[in-house]
Amino acid sequence: MNLTGQMMYEPLLLSSLLRHAARHAGEVEVVSCLVDGGIHRYTYRDCHARVMQLANALTGRGIVAGDRIGTLAWNGYRHMELYYGVAGIGAVCHTINPRLFPEQIAYIINHAGDRIVCFDASFAPLVEQIADRCPKVETWIMLCDPFDLPRPFPVQLESYEAFIGDCAKDFAWPEFDERQAAILCYTSGTTGDPKGVLYSHRSLSLMVYALVAPDAFGLSATDTIAPVVPMFHVSAWGLPFAAPMVGARLVLPGSKLDSESLWNLFEQEGVTVSAGVPTIWFGFVDYMCREDKRIERFRRAIVGGAACPPGLTAKMRERGIATVHAWGMTELSPLGTVCAPSHSYPGKSAEARARIDVKQGRAAPGIDLKIVGEDGVELPWDGKSVGDLWVRGHWVVDRYYGSDHSALVDGWFPTGDVANIDTESYMEITDRSKDVIKSGGEWISSIELENISMSHPDIEMAACIAAEHPKWGERPLLIVVRRPDSALTVAELLAYYDGKVPKWCVPDDVIFVNELPLNATGKMQKQVLRLRFGKQLVKPDA
Amino acid sequence: MNLTGQMMYEPLLLSSLLRHAARHAGEVEVVSCLVDGGIHRYTYRDCHARVMQLANALTGRGIVAGDRIGTLAWNGYRHMELYYGVAGIGAVCHTINPRLFPEQIAYIINHAGDRIVCFDASFAPLVEQIADRCPKVETWIMLCDPFDLPRPFPVQLESYEAFIGDCAKDFAWPEFDERQAAILCYTSGTTGDPKGVLYSHRSLSLMVYALVAPDAFGLSATDTIAPVVPMFHVSAWGLPFAAPMVGARLVLPGSKLDSESLWNLFEQEGVTVSAGVPTIWFGFVDYMCREDKRIERFRRAIVGGAACPPGLTAKMRERGIATVHAWGMTELSPLGTVCAPSHSYPGKSAEARARIDVKQGRAAPGIDLKIVGEDGVELPWDGKSVGDLWVRGHWVVDRYYGSDHSALVDGWFPTGDVANIDTESYMEITDRSKDVIKSGGEWISSIELENISMSHPDIEMAACIAAEHPKWGERPLLIVVRRPDSALTVAELLAYYDGKVPKWCVPDDVIFVNELPLNATGKMQKQVLRLRFGKQLVKPDA
Repeated sequence: MNLTGQMMYEPLLLSSLLRHAARHAGEVEVVSCLVDGGIHRYTYRDCHARVMQLANALTGRGIVAGDRIGTLAWNGYRHMELYYGVAGIGAVCHTINPRLFPEQIAYIINHAGDRIVCFDASFAPLVEQIADRCPKVETWIMLCDPFDLPRPFPVQLESYEAFIGDCAKDFAWPEFDERQAAILCYTSGTTGDPKGVLYSHRSLSLMVYALVAPDAFGLSATDTIAPVVPMFHVSAWGLPFAAPMVGARLVLPGSKLDSESLWNLFEQEGVTVSAGVPTIWFGFVDYMCREDKRIERFRRAIVGGAACPPGLTAKMRERGIATVHAWGMTELSPLGTVCAPSHSYPGKSAEARARIDVKQGRAAPGIDLKIVGEDGVELPWDGKSVGDLWVRGHWVVDRYYGSDHSALVDGWFPTGDVANIDTESYMEITDRSKDVIKSGGEWISSIELENISMSHPDIEMAACIAAEHPKWGERPLLIVVRRPDSALTVAELLAYYDGKVPKWCVPDDVIFVNELPLNATGKMQKQVLRLRFGKQLVKPDA
Repeated sequence: MNLTGQMMYEPLLLSSLLRHAARHAGEVEVVSCLVDGGIHRYTYRDCHARVMQLANALTGRGIVAGDRIGTLAWNGYRHMELYYGVAGIGAVCHTINPRLFPEQIAYIINHAGDRIVCFDASFAPLVEQIADRCPKVETWIMLCDPFDLPRPFPVQLESYEAFIGDCAKDFAWPEFDERQAAILCYTSGTTGDPKGVLYSHRSLSLMVYALVAPDAFGLSATDTIAPVVPMFHVSAWGLPFAAPMVGARLVLPGSKLDSESLWNLFEQEGVTVSAGVPTIWFGFVDYMCREDKRIERFRRAIVGGAACPPGLTAKMRERGIATVHAWGMTELSPLGTVCAPSHSYPGKSAEARARIDVKQGRAAPGIDLKIVGEDGVELPWDGKSVGDLWVRGHWVVDRYYGSDHSALVDGWFPTGDVANIDTESYMEITDRSKDVIKSGGEWISSIELENISMSHPDIEMAACIAAEHPKWGERPLLIVVRRPDSALTVAELLAYYDGKVPKWCVPDDVIFVNELPLNATGKMQKQVLRLRFGKQLVKPDA
């Protein structure tokens, strides 16, 4: 005989977050960099009013719950309005990565069945290319004023401002099932067609509660938050939801993401927290060192999307900026782990702390992790056992959009990463499961070997692959880009591994190249390297 | 046409919080002060194992989902085990306030229909008094080892350790509807029978996510958290759930809550954060001043349950301890508002900040507030308009336990407090609605007048009531306790109000008493004062 609690029930909806900000932080600003170099400012109260106009415009045009609306846009206020306006009425905001190849973008728009696609002016040439391949799109909306519309244009366009212009600034947000879809984001896998992850209002709301915690991103009302990570990449890691939730100021940097532009923006707007991939921060801190710049209020850079190399943390710290090392995936909304100090961390030696800092971190509450062997049996958390990383939790994918089979195994999502977990629950990714090097029955971490190489002052970029080997099955092979003026030799680089890894883990050889192959989102395409260099150790004279 | 998100669904259950701690902070300690002066220590992993034993014991005894299990206990590890073990199997942990009068306790146990009541040894005399008035209780369990059971005893007793002793340390936590009841807590109203608030797994889980945020209690894994607020008082404000959620160390101070014991405990155990009512912190900081003590790691005292007077904040700050001013109610689980800095706070003058610091604060995300006039119409947030405070949100009561009508008005819970809300959304309680003084059509805040009095060095405690007045309807009358050696006069105390409030708000008279009437939970019983002194100004010679 169950007994139901007697507390108020309200569904967890994204519209509540913005309404909360409009009521409880109504005067706090959302600042956006415009394509023309200008700055747009308004308050959460203004933002909410325009989002209500958008909701009226969408419903007036017959958009109903469950419909998909695509976006091709940088981080800016109109993109933010689309997040809330579309999801608020129960429709789905489908954020499209404009860096994909046009044919992939067309594939995604068709696969999602977008009824409307909204795009920034800078993507008009892209839309010109793909529009006739997307016959199901009824309306193309450019995020601009009416007089900025390009003419002629192969398909009919509307301007966003005209679309919402006459609509009332009042809208009664509907209450609906919190498990209803809100946001759709496709993963840019390195192989195969992109796969869509369909986030619900509930999954995002719970993720955002976990995100603001001190041991995650630690966000408060006094922060000014600038997501450098794009809003088409896993909802800019949830920051456009987290900032209104806590009443923080939000700075959306638009399309100019070069280090000088970012530094100027952060300094002028008093940004306190930002988030982005390591590449962004490497450039940012290099710029600061080169120009001998400090920065007034910027204190915390959240680093995710790829492992945060120790060298980056140290360089950032010298400039007064702490790095917060986080790990996640599109399939995890994206919050998985954050490398925040555990209870025993403050009492440890500097060396022990440094060993922890490079790890991906501990599971956010709401997420559980395990590592399993090839037989699917859970492995011990001893910091040594290495296995496939599986996750579960409130904001983990269940199945990909449009797929009729589960993405899970025994209720867990296999991440495709290979990791160890130590006695204090710090998880460390050692490889992608397809990148691990299996040498004579032992597993060698390609990431560890790459990181060592990257810490050499003469190396700009490094990849380590499993090359076929007649005796050992596979052996590590290093492929690196030297800095322009470097004369580093193979022998010198290999000698650099002495004492850093066991003898049998040192790469067998080094190949110098001018550039490494990256996919549209900047991820290393190791499969290309394996195709080209995978047999290098079998035929050393190839 | 709705579209359901395709994310994993797991109900929000309290058992998940402890399991998370056991897996991800398994070696972190729960420290409990025992009645005999000793200290008990174990880890979250140990705690989880014993909670699983308890779950086996309860189900073995036929306890099923929805059954109520009462507790009469201090803050300690067995009480914590009862929270998780009882709620984990879907039954309801009913935390009883042992400071109520025995007849109220018997009323509550019968009203709740508790099948089992578990109690600390120190409450054995109380149980002796009430046991025969609680015929529906099947089993009385004393939280002790078998050989500590008192004999003879009017009813048959079991010891907790024997009850769980032989049970397996393994239990598959059931998944059930997250809206199912988990914890039951009765409010100690100043009038009428106590009313039960029945928290659900969902309402508590969401409240705890909001609680750990930087702008709420700001809890992290590196903290050592000591809830001084009792576990029978709104789940110790959620801290026994929040500490495992973030992997913080938890220190449960047992029954010795005098300042010296607390100081020693906090110093020895390295407590970083604590929570309690202002009375606790007044005593604590007085002790520190008197004994000229500092404290090593204690940095944050959460102050709730009554307004935090400015004098307390200043005194605590001098000793290196920040106060976090929070407001809540049993009906709010209890988190309502926290006086954390808004975005514009850091840029304000010291005076402006001081004016903000005394306010109850801004709504936690998940809670909405409004103030309404006597006609139920919402009043503006201008810092001046004063009205009845209404709240709504994920962890607000819907109806009292056993009541067949809603506790809400138009979907909002009327708190019984009178408040203003300023342009930056800071809420300030000026009165309980029944305590407000209505003088010639103007409202005068009794709390403001009390606070001024309390800031006088000669005043130990003050109450201000509405006394009948032939001309003005009501006028403020002050009833105060002077410090033992004080010779303060009525005229001197009234003169102290000069320049602090408008002339017409200064109390008409002062009555010196030796003590003020408090109820069982330490709340001022103004209705007693009104009965005794309410006509003082009509018949000044009474």
